[in-house]
Amino acid sequence: MTKKVLVLPGDGIGPEIVGQATRVLDALIENHGLDVTYESALVGGSSYDAHETPLTDEVLAQAKDADAILLGAVGGPKWEQYDISVRPEKALLKLRSELELFGNLRPAILYKQLADASSLKPELVSDLDVLIVRELTGGIYFGQPRGIRTLENGERQGFNTYVYSESEVERIAHVAFKAAMLRDKRVCSVDKANVLEATELWREVMERVSKEYPEVELTHMYVDNAAMQLVRAPKQFDVMVTGNMFGDILSDCAAMLTGSIGMLPSASLDANGKGMYEPIHGSAPDIAGQNKANPLATILSVSMLLRHSFGEGALADKIDQAVSTVLDQGYRTADIHTEGDTLVSTTEMGDAVLKAL
Amino acid sequence: MTKKVLVLPGDGIGPEIVGQATRVLDALIENHGLDVTYESALVGGSSYDAHETPLTDEVLAQAKDADAILLGAVGGPKWEQYDISVRPEKALLKLRSELELFGNLRPAILYKQLADASSLKPELVSDLDVLIVRELTGGIYFGQPRGIRTLENGERQGFNTYVYSESEVERIAHVAFKAAMLRDKRVCSVDKANVLEATELWREVMERVSKEYPEVELTHMYVDNAAMQLVRAPKQFDVMVTGNMFGDILSDCAAMLTGSIGMLPSASLDANGKGMYEPIHGSAPDIAGQNKANPLATILSVSMLLRHSFGEGALADKIDQAVSTVLDQGYRTADIHTEGDTLVSTTEMGDAVLKAL
Ligand SMILES: CC(C)[C@H](C(=O)O)[C@@H](O)C(=O)O
Ligand SMILES: CC(C)[C@H](C(=O)O)[C@@H](O)C(=O)O
Repeated sequence: MTKKVLVLPGDGIGPEIVGQATRVLDALIENHGLDVTYESALVGGSSYDAHETPLTDEVLAQAKDADAILLGAVGGPKWEQYDISVRPEKALLKLRSELELFGNLRPAILYKQLADASSLKPELVSDLDVLIVRELTGGIYFGQPRGIRTLENGERQGFNTYVYSESEVERIAHVAFKAAMLRDKRVCSVDKANVLEATELWREVMERVSKEYPEVELTHMYVDNAAMQLVRAPKQFDVMVTGNMFGDILSDCAAMLTGSIGMLPSASLDANGKGMYEPIHGSAPDIAGQNKANPLATILSVSMLLRHSFGEGALADKIDQAVSTVLDQGYRTADIHTEGDTLVSTTEMGDAVLKAL
Repeated sequence: MTKKVLVLPGDGIGPEIVGQATRVLDALIENHGLDVTYESALVGGSSYDAHETPLTDEVLAQAKDADAILLGAVGGPKWEQYDISVRPEKALLKLRSELELFGNLRPAILYKQLADASSLKPELVSDLDVLIVRELTGGIYFGQPRGIRTLENGERQGFNTYVYSESEVERIAHVAFKAAMLRDKRVCSVDKANVLEATELWREVMERVSKEYPEVELTHMYVDNAAMQLVRAPKQFDVMVTGNMFGDILSDCAAMLTGSIGMLPSASLDANGKGMYEPIHGSAPDIAGQNKANPLATILSVSMLLRHSFGEGALADKIDQAVSTVLDQGYRTADIHTEGDTLVSTTEMGDAVLKAL
């Protein structure tokens, strides 16, 4: 049966990079028998400008109806003045929550062709391949109660609730252990169990679920130490699993270790393999509309989409291979360009990938 | 009037490194007219072993009575099996809270003599000098309600509360802005105001307090981006101010950027300049008792103590100078040793500092 993809270009460079990713999709549909249709819709700031909400009910319904979602990026200074409830980010959070996309996979991979891009010494990051598994629909991001209240003494107080139930931890644990089974079979669970009760329970559940994966080695690390170890010796990690807030911080830190966040895709999965796929970088308003942005993270998001939601591992491999080829050929957008390489635009990079396909 | 220091060596390498720091104190008392007395007490695991609590009421009273506290380090695998309520860390948290030591100063300084120790490329970290100001007695560390409860459906749920009132943010804001006035006059406040209401209020209060420091430039950064920027280009920062949890993570990350956490002291201050001073590194149980640990972070904690609690800037400068001298002379403990340097023990490093004083 024909699978449906909802394409959400979003704001800033979103439309440009997604444009190249859909060219790749088109090529696979036309030339490799991929049985997929897709339609596009507004999300984030561009949706706010048109409809005064970053995510309309219609688009949410389309997202629920689709088999997978490809997202560009949302946000920009233009919308930062608005109330938190209608900011572009809210669309992301609502999509994650309403679609129960609790399993966020954020690979931090250093492409050997881009080894110099890292701010770390080459020997510490060569061949880096860490997978961060972040819980995405719970924790302090969604915990109730939350808000700003006025205390008896008249001063205001802001509050949020960090909360995880056993079943929420269990399901993300399974995602992490299953991912580890396909890799080096090591999971490091990151918590702050020496201070936060919510993460004490997290640790306990991780231990329990690990019994079902006797081949996988489970270790625990406090989040402050994890941040240090990522900087000191990132290659010690295989899979890291953690809650929503810590995952937000650590996955960005890990991504930056590669020095090329323009290269990193991500997947946010529900329990049935449906997912939303997006580059981990932002909407880069400063270079929007200039045909300068790196489309490779979005193109690699298509690869993740095919692999995780559509079971099309062979086609996903083709995309990965094509990206590796264009890097070998020396093509670089501005964000990863160094002397001696061939500087290309967003569309030229798309051309090169299509040719390599 | 004679000032009183309470010395809390703690666990692991604590007694060894504090031993060298008190030798420095002794020297200043004997030879430089420093009018200080000190006494020692148990804290952490060693207190638990003797009294079944990581902090006795007596020691807490001594701490309240002292003008400043010098702490080594607490914790170790031996005590990790115990309930969170009696673990060594609890002593730290209780001291911070009971003494209202809300202002945590964590400098991340790269000593030019140790430039190679960083995992970052030298040009990115040479002369790095960032001050992290962490709120230490509020936020999710102490927020109520907290615990593990059983839901109606029978499953358990762990929960914590992230909470900041206006006055709590105000007082840490003043600490940050005052510190910035003595430095490069730039404060970057780190929050997650696009998701957490508690930090929305944080941001608003930071803006308000900044009006009292027109010379200081205030910027805001989301915590995930801050973690990235620390790895990408740490020298962009002067003072970073943030809440308890984010500060825990970012200060360890920033410290590790220097590659020599055996060199970094910290101060935890109340509203009147009373403070607790400690190295930012841990109790390193693996090398405890071997006369191998680096005492310099603890010796530099004495310098911070003299500067911040006793107004003895000149004596503090003397200590800083002595530490710089021993580094120039090539003395290195194992943690910072590289080929060509003189490898020294904990006590030999103490000897060298005393000689340089
Ligand atoms: C935009 C923001 C709400 C989001 C998050 O914090 O989850 C982003 O930082 C991310 O990591 O996808
Ligand atoms: C030991 C622990 C409770 C403590 C903290 O989280 O504050 C430590 O990591 C620190 O940063 O001083």
